Amino acid sequence: MNLEKIGEFGLIKRIRNWIKTSNPDVIRGIGDDVAIVEMGRKVMMITTDILIEGIHFNMSWIDPYRLGKKSLAVNLSDIAAMGGIPKYFLISIGIPKRLPISFISLFYRSLRREARRFKIDLIGGDTSLSQKIVINICLIGEGDKEDIIFRDGAKPGDDLYVSGTVGDSALGLRILQTKNLKYRPKKLINKQLSPIPRIQLGQSLARNHLASAMIDISDGLLIDTKHILEESQVGARIWETYLPLSRQYRKWSTFYDDNLYDMALRGGEDYELLFSAPRNLRDRISSLSLSLKIPITRIGEILPKKEGFRIIRKDGREYLPNALGYNHFK
Amino acid sequence: MNLEKIGEFGLIKRIRNWIKTSNPDVIRGIGDDVAIVEMGRKVMMITTDILIEGIHFNMSWIDPYRLGKKSLAVNLSDIAAMGGIPKYFLISIGIPKRLPISFISLFYRSLRREARRFKIDLIGGDTSLSQKIVINICLIGEGDKEDIIFRDGAKPGDDLYVSGTVGDSALGLRILQTKNLKYRPKKLINKQLSPIPRIQLGQSLARNHLASAMIDISDGLLIDTKHILEESQVGARIWETYLPLSRQYRKWSTFYDDNLYDMALRGGEDYELLFSAPRNLRDRISSLSLSLKIPITRIGEILPKKEGFRIIRKDGREYLPNALGYNHFK
Repeated sequence: MNLEKIGEFGLIKRIRNWIKTSNPDVIRGIGDDVAIVEMGRKVMMITTDILIEGIHFNMSWIDPYRLGKKSLAVNLSDIAAMGGIPKYFLISIGIPKRLPISFISLFYRSLRREARRFKIDLIGGDTSLSQKIVINICLIGEGDKEDIIFRDGAKPGDDLYVSGTVGDSALGLRILQTKNLKYRPKKLINKQLSPIPRIQLGQSLARNHLASAMIDISDGLLIDTKHILEESQVGARIWETYLPLSRQYRKWSTFYDDNLYDMALRGGEDYELLFSAPRNLRDRISSLSLSLKIPITRIGEILPKKEGFRIIRKDGREYLPNALGYNHFK
Repeated sequence: MNLEKIGEFGLIKRIRNWIKTSNPDVIRGIGDDVAIVEMGRKVMMITTDILIEGIHFNMSWIDPYRLGKKSLAVNLSDIAAMGGIPKYFLISIGIPKRLPISFISLFYRSLRREARRFKIDLIGGDTSLSQKIVINICLIGEGDKEDIIFRDGAKPGDDLYVSGTVGDSALGLRILQTKNLKYRPKKLINKQLSPIPRIQLGQSLARNHLASAMIDISDGLLIDTKHILEESQVGARIWETYLPLSRQYRKWSTFYDDNLYDMALRGGEDYELLFSAPRNLRDRISSLSLSLKIPITRIGEILPKKEGFRIIRKDGREYLPNALGYNHFK
């Protein structure tokens, strides 16, 4: 048996079983995006992401500046999804022999700029030769124990929200992969190459206890919703027509897909926050959206587990999503 | 300009300049093996190491069990060198599509066993497709602020010590690289494939304030001594004949090298501890060696900076080491 057969989530499930911890200081361990351990009154949050040339990025699309920015963004987004405050990061980098120093210099310059922007410090790392560029970032954040937002707190009756717009990143990737295009819409490309982690939104939701469960959309809206549903032992209903789609998405997606909502539901890497919240908080969530100037859209509701996971089409008919998203190992 | 030209240490120096931190909580940042940040009364130590197939290991020599063990050992050794207590680790792994699950399962089984042995917990990680196997571990430890042993505390007049024996790992690698050998000495091979981090020794030296500066030998005795000398602004003298060499080393090194001491001085990956200590602690260090049953050998002394770094040969003549060790980027 190999990876193609069991897929990424199959592997993670196995790893969870291979290695179990009984340490009471470990609040969340393997299987979550972020590990959480007690450190006195505070908790420490740690997340790590690996990016490999040819798998996660393609040198012909991305420049070193955007590569640095994105490497950090995907980790920041994990901390955002817990409502944490990012503090420190370490970076390991595998570098091909002939890569010009100017590339590495620009890469680090981008890290420095992002580090300042998010008030975090690069504190260590490792360097190695490698055939392909490999980047691994380990990001450490902190939070108050009572404020952390997990994936397992969604209750039937809660609303389901998403920040920003969805599908842009996946569409941006499709456009990057299309050869000989004369014009490429900047907004969609940027969403793929330079996603902006929702750090401030995550912290505001956490501090004000506004979300019952939260995740960042890295694998795709459906698959990440499914993570919340499984962890919370609930079902959900999402209205396709409620999905926040950008103007560019509406225009360009028609060239790639008959179904307007397909990439929005199944495409990954939007790094938007997906969260559930009790109905009585609708006004407070609207105010937060206004004050942070970040769109927050109600797209569905949490149901009892037995109701399952349904998508409501434009014509009112429901369907159960089958193929949820992208399997990284296929 | 590319990496071949500036080498690994040239790159690290540049990175240090590209990214500087002014955060007062960061006690040690980039450039050290271990990053140290204040966390209340305690300090948190974080280290990360990347291992890449074809660069750090070769699939024909190593089995998944030893690979897991070594991946963790190189990080544990970094924490040992600061006198810290390892606590948690995260692992990112890049996996070729066709790698059998049994390989990954054995790899994690080995991690689990080592985690129990060193009382640490695997708390998270990331998985990805990759052409070659890539392993990145991020290890988090803790310590008391007053106990940490840095590289910069060596004083003229201090003794210089090393634990265990040196050169075995480099010789083991040479033997692994030799084709068609009928017999391969197990001890030397094991030192290369399954080094044992000196966690207990590091902690004992730290808790009892017995070492003025310390490092683990990963790049080679000369180069790692040089790190201590540069950070401490001192010189040193090492007697070749004092170097602790194993019986197997003495026997097998003659097949590879005319100079008995060459691999002991220049070979890397012994993961022994190299430390300086005031002369008046000689008896206490001997007792510690006896009680922990770990050989500790006095190999030299720290000199004022102007005396430089000298090696004393068997015939009493001194020389200044030029080529210190191995440049990973060449």
